[in-house]
Amino acid sequence: MSTTQLIPAAARSIQNYILELTGRLEAIEILEPGAGTVRYSHDAATVSAASQPGPVVVLPSTAAEVQAAVQLAAELGLTVVPRGAGTGLSGGATAGQDQVVISTEKLNRIIEVSQLDEVAVVEPGVINAELNRHLAPLGLFYAPDPASFDISSIGGNIATNAGGLRCAKYGVTRESILSLDVVLADGSLISVGHRSIKGVTGLDLTSLFVGSEGILGIVVRATVRLRPVPVARKTVSAYFNSTAEGTKGLSAITLSPVRPAAIEFFDAPSLENIDAHSGTNLRARGAALILVELDGYGINEQAADLTAALTKAGGRVTVESDQDGEQLWELRRSGRGLPQDKWYIGEDIAVPKSQLAKVYAAFPALEGRFGVNISAVSHAGDGNLHPLITKDKTAGDGTHPPAALLEAATELVKVALSLGGTVTGEHGVGTIKREWAALELSERSRRVQRAIKAALDPQQTLNPGKAI
Amino acid sequence: MSTTQLIPAAARSIQNYILELTGRLEAIEILEPGAGTVRYSHDAATVSAASQPGPVVVLPSTAAEVQAAVQLAAELGLTVVPRGAGTGLSGGATAGQDQVVISTEKLNRIIEVSQLDEVAVVEPGVINAELNRHLAPLGLFYAPDPASFDISSIGGNIATNAGGLRCAKYGVTRESILSLDVVLADGSLISVGHRSIKGVTGLDLTSLFVGSEGILGIVVRATVRLRPVPVARKTVSAYFNSTAEGTKGLSAITLSPVRPAAIEFFDAPSLENIDAHSGTNLRARGAALILVELDGYGINEQAADLTAALTKAGGRVTVESDQDGEQLWELRRSGRGLPQDKWYIGEDIAVPKSQLAKVYAAFPALEGRFGVNISAVSHAGDGNLHPLITKDKTAGDGTHPPAALLEAATELVKVALSLGGTVTGEHGVGTIKREWAALELSERSRRVQRAIKAALDPQQTLNPGKAI
Repeated sequence: MSTTQLIPAAARSIQNYILELTGRLEAIEILEPGAGTVRYSHDAATVSAASQPGPVVVLPSTAAEVQAAVQLAAELGLTVVPRGAGTGLSGGATAGQDQVVISTEKLNRIIEVSQLDEVAVVEPGVINAELNRHLAPLGLFYAPDPASFDISSIGGNIATNAGGLRCAKYGVTRESILSLDVVLADGSLISVGHRSIKGVTGLDLTSLFVGSEGILGIVVRATVRLRPVPVARKTVSAYFNSTAEGTKGLSAITLSPVRPAAIEFFDAPSLENIDAHSGTNLRARGAALILVELDGYGINEQAADLTAALTKAGGRVTVESDQDGEQLWELRRSGRGLPQDKWYIGEDIAVPKSQLAKVYAAFPALEGRFGVNISAVSHAGDGNLHPLITKDKTAGDGTHPPAALLEAATELVKVALSLGGTVTGEHGVGTIKREWAALELSERSRRVQRAIKAALDPQQTLNPGKAI
Repeated sequence: MSTTQLIPAAARSIQNYILELTGRLEAIEILEPGAGTVRYSHDAATVSAASQPGPVVVLPSTAAEVQAAVQLAAELGLTVVPRGAGTGLSGGATAGQDQVVISTEKLNRIIEVSQLDEVAVVEPGVINAELNRHLAPLGLFYAPDPASFDISSIGGNIATNAGGLRCAKYGVTRESILSLDVVLADGSLISVGHRSIKGVTGLDLTSLFVGSEGILGIVVRATVRLRPVPVARKTVSAYFNSTAEGTKGLSAITLSPVRPAAIEFFDAPSLENIDAHSGTNLRARGAALILVELDGYGINEQAADLTAALTKAGGRVTVESDQDGEQLWELRRSGRGLPQDKWYIGEDIAVPKSQLAKVYAAFPALEGRFGVNISAVSHAGDGNLHPLITKDKTAGDGTHPPAALLEAATELVKVALSLGGTVTGEHGVGTIKREWAALELSERSRRVQRAIKAALDPQQTLNPGKAI
C-alpha cells in the first residue's frame, strides 16, 4: 500500500462519503481516516505495508447499516474492503486510503443456540473461541479451529474458509456453515442455504460465499452446525529418528482403522524452535514428532490400535496423561517463536497426504540453492504444511528481504504444485499469493472466477484486487 | 415434453449435428433419434412425459469427445442435456427432440484408487455401488449412499449433490468431492479443486458445480474422498406407540452423545406399506419406528447409551442381531411398494430436525382438506422427509391426476417452508420443482443464480430450463 499523501480528489470523495452516510444513518459509528485507523489498513500478514494515515472505517451494528454503507460506496464509485478481526495471513483485508473499510466487529451477537437443531445463529463479528465458550455448558462445540481461534472472528473464518487442526475429521469451515445472510455489492440482502443438513434448491451459493475473501458479498449472519462434545479425548505422541521415518508413521495411521481428530507433524527444527522458545526438551526425545488427538467412543481401543500401528512403523509411542496432552497441544498452538532476528516467510501449501514426505525431502536442496533454512509443522491428516523459510539478516541490504528468500518460497510452492498440491491450504490468496495462484489455476479457470465476480459485482465494488 | 412431430427445420438441424460430429470424431457413438432413444427423453420421475421418438444421444467415451460434442452443439445453436444413469427424481435429465443428450454412461472407468491419499479418481459413469464393490477389498468406502446407489452414477450423484441415509454423519455428496474435471458450455475443459482435503485457491468452483444439475458444465472426471470401513456396525430399533412419541425419541438421540451413521424414521402407514409389500409384521411392534445404524469404535458403549436414551423417551428398544439388522435395512431401502392403484406424488422436503414432529403433525389436516392420504419415511438425522401423498384413482377423470393431489403437495411444501425448511433435500429442482423453488428463494437470490448461469453459459447451451 502507498504511504504517500492521498490525492485531494480522493480525500474529498471519502469526506463526502462520511458526510452522506452520517446523514443517512444517524447512529452509524465511523472512524475518520487518521493515525487511529492505521491498524485497519492491513491484516496480520501485511503489517509492514501499513498505510499512514489509515482509511475510513465504518462499524455497522446491524445488517441494514452494512447495506446502507455498501450501497453508498457503490453510488459514489468507491470500493469497499470488508474486514473481520484482521487476523488474516494473506493480505485479504489490506485497505488503501481511497477505500472504505467495513468492519464487522460490532456485529458480534450470538443470536440463538438450538440444541435440538444442533445449530447456532451468529453475527460475523463473534470470535471463534467466544462461541465455543458459550456452547461448552450445553455440551456442544463448533468444530472449525484455526490456530487463531482465540482472536479470529467467525465472519473472517467464513471469508477464508478457515481450516485448523481438526479438519481431517470434522471438515473445514465450509462443512460447518449451513446458511448465510449476505449483503451483495449493490447493498441488497439475500439469504442462502438451509438450517437443515440437507438442501439442494438451486446453485449452492452458500459454498460459493464461503472462502470468497469478501469479493462477492459481506456476511452479516451465519447459521453454523454444532456437534456434541466427544465423550472422551486422548493425546498420543510418537517420536521418530528422522523426518523420513516420521512420515512413514503418518502413512501407518492412514492404513490403520483409526481416524484421529487431529494429526500434527513436527520436524527436528520445529521441535528445536519449541524447546528454545518454551524451555522444553522435545528434541531430545526424537528428530520428528507425530502428535495425535483421539476422540469419541472406544477411546482406549482407538489408542491401542494407534499405538500398535505407530510402534510397528518405528515410533516411540506414549499415550499421554490428560495434563501432558494438554501441554503438548498448547506447545503446538503457541510454543514456537518467530525468528525476529532473521528474514522469514511462512507458507501454507497443501499436498495429497501421501506426498508430505516428498515435500520435506525437498527442503535440503532448496536450502543449499538459496542459502535459506526451511522447517515445517504440518496438519498431516489433510496434507497441509506450514513451512517457515528463514535467512540471516546479514543477507541483502539489511532493510529489504533478500530476493533469494522469496525465490526459495516460490520454488517450494512449485514443489507442492508438482506433487498435485495447492499454494494455499487454509489462509487464502488475498493480495500476497495472487502470483502463486496464477501458477496453480489455468487461465480458463481464472476466467470463470472473474466471470462470477463480474456477475455478482459488475462495478467491482467489493474488495477488488483480492483472491482472484 | 411434446409428443408431436418435430418441425422439419429442427430435425434438419439435428441431422446436421450428427453428420458434422461424425465427421469430426470418427469413433463417436451416436444413437439416432427414434424409438430406441425414448428412454433418454426422461428420468425416473418423468416417465409419463416420454418423448416419441426419442432425442439424439451422444455416448462419448473420452473427455475430448464430450468437449467436441458440446462445442459443436454451441456452434450450431443447439442445446445439450447432460445425462447420468437417468435415475433422477426431479426431471433434471428430461430432453426434447430438438436437444442433444450427452450421456456419460460410457465414461465408466475407475481410474485410480489411492489408499495413502484416501481418494479414488473416477469417471462420471461409474455406478455408485460398483465403486464400493471395488473398494471393499481395500477396507475403504465411498460414503454418499442415495437409495438409488445400485443404479445411479457418481456423475449423476454429483449433479444433484445426492444425499442418502448416512449424511448426518458423513455429509452429502459435496463433502466427498475433492476435485472435478468439467467441460464448460463452450467445450473447454477445466480442473477445479484439490486432491488434498484442504485448498482455498480462489472461489470454490468445485462446490458450485456439485448440485448444479448440468446447467454449468459436464463433469468428466472426479476425485472423491474415501474413508476406512468402520471397525464395527450395529443396528438398533426402537418402536413407539405413536408418531408424536417417536419424534420425541428422535430428540432424545440429538440430546445424547451418540451420533449414528443413519437414523431413519417410519410412521404407521409406512410400516403398514412394508408389511403389505414384504410380508413382514412390523406394524404389530409399534406405530412408529426409529431405525438406527451405529458404527465405529466403542460400539457396545454406543449401543448402551442409545438404548438408555431411547428407552427413557418411551421406546421399546432392541439391539438387533447382524442378520436382523441387515434385513431391516433391506426393508428400508426396497421393502415398500408404490401404490400403483392410486394417484401419488413423492416429496423430498427437509426441515430443521427439531421441526420434524410438526411436519408429521400437519398431515391429518391436509388429508382432510384435500381428500388424500399422507405418510412419510424420514432421514431423521438431517431433517429430510419423503412424504408419499396418495389419492384414490376414482378421483378425477381417471386419466389425469386430480388437482387436489398437487394442491396437497404444494401445501405440504409450504408447511416445510414455514418451519424454516426447503422444497428439496436431496433430489434437486430439475423441471418439476421449479415453481416450488420460487416459493423458497427470493427474487434477488434467483437473480444471482441466473447471473452465475449467464456468466458461465451466456448462450444457454447446457440444460436450459432446469434447476433455476
